[in-house]
Amino acid sequence: MADELHGRRVAILATDGVEQVEYEQPREAVERAGAQATLISTHDGEIQAMNHDTEKGDRFAVEAQVADVHPGDYDALILPGGTCNPDRLRMNTSAVSFVRTFVESGKPVAAICHGPWMLVEADVVRGRTLTSWPSVRTDIRNAGGNVVDQEVVTDNGLVTSRKPDDLPAFCAKVVEEFAEGRHPVAQPSS
Amino acid sequence: MADELHGRRVAILATDGVEQVEYEQPREAVERAGAQATLISTHDGEIQAMNHDTEKGDRFAVEAQVADVHPGDYDALILPGGTCNPDRLRMNTSAVSFVRTFVESGKPVAAICHGPWMLVEADVVRGRTLTSWPSVRTDIRNAGGNVVDQEVVTDNGLVTSRKPDDLPAFCAKVVEEFAEGRHPVAQPSS
Repeated sequence: MADELHGRRVAILATDGVEQVEYEQPREAVERAGAQATLISTHDGEIQAMNHDTEKGDRFAVEAQVADVHPGDYDALILPGGTCNPDRLRMNTSAVSFVRTFVESGKPVAAICHGPWMLVEADVVRGRTLTSWPSVRTDIRNAGGNVVDQEVVTDNGLVTSRKPDDLPAFCAKVVEEFAEGRHPVAQPSS
Repeated sequence: MADELHGRRVAILATDGVEQVEYEQPREAVERAGAQATLISTHDGEIQAMNHDTEKGDRFAVEAQVADVHPGDYDALILPGGTCNPDRLRMNTSAVSFVRTFVESGKPVAAICHGPWMLVEADVVRGRTLTSWPSVRTDIRNAGGNVVDQEVVTDNGLVTSRKPDDLPAFCAKVVEEFAEGRHPVAQPSS
């Protein structure tokens, strides 16, 4: 099972405030499985990661700017958490549009902790079942999503988890779902 | 106009991550007008304020714990911002209940920046007109609120502003609305 993501291009969308382990561990998991991962952000240079939201962690080099890339260039998408990270991303129209197009294409998407706020902003949780950090759940429900409290939840290519403690289960499921590739897209009922 | 809040008791509900100026300036404004302000939080000891969300500011002594107080003990409520502050408060059932009871009582409530997330969590924005930091607006709309983009908005005793730059207008309106006291509560239509 060492190469099940060989040749797959994985976008990781994050900005300043990203929870460091929620960026590093999923990236390591998909790269170990053979994928090529790219850190995409809203600005060039580096982004500042945080630990437990309040302590500054490492800085990470941005590998592409979201305004310059297209969802078609990637096979799967990871949305890490960290409170201030999606709080900033959701104000960027290119980032929101990138996420919306990705989900609507049926390609696998994974979000952890506060990451699902981007799914709320992109208005793509309606009728989907997912989990998140507790503070985000009212916003998911108000956006039409069905919230459950589980370590990891999969709904037709959408993988979500609650918090850093869930990372082992999240990373395993991410590799599995990303290996399955594009999922059938539900047609809107007429 | 130096004593228009004489004898009024103002609750300020905040926790770690509060944006420092959004705690200090409204407090100073109501105290200058003669009110007695109390910093209420989810834990005892001190809370850690932040500047621009990412740089640690001062620490402030908690004057009461939200689980120990009753909305009836206060005449008005201030909800400062700072991304991580309401993000943490909204997971505390005592804090959410305190806010809901306060708004439903018709007593004046003021919220700035990310503070309105607490109004979303308490489900009290339905049919109300308010403003907030841009990232919170989709969550307010999904909770049934009407969002406008103005320096300061007043809706029947609910005062809201967008960001630290709005503080002069926010503080002036807070004193004015708090001086008016309890506003008539709309009866639910049958």
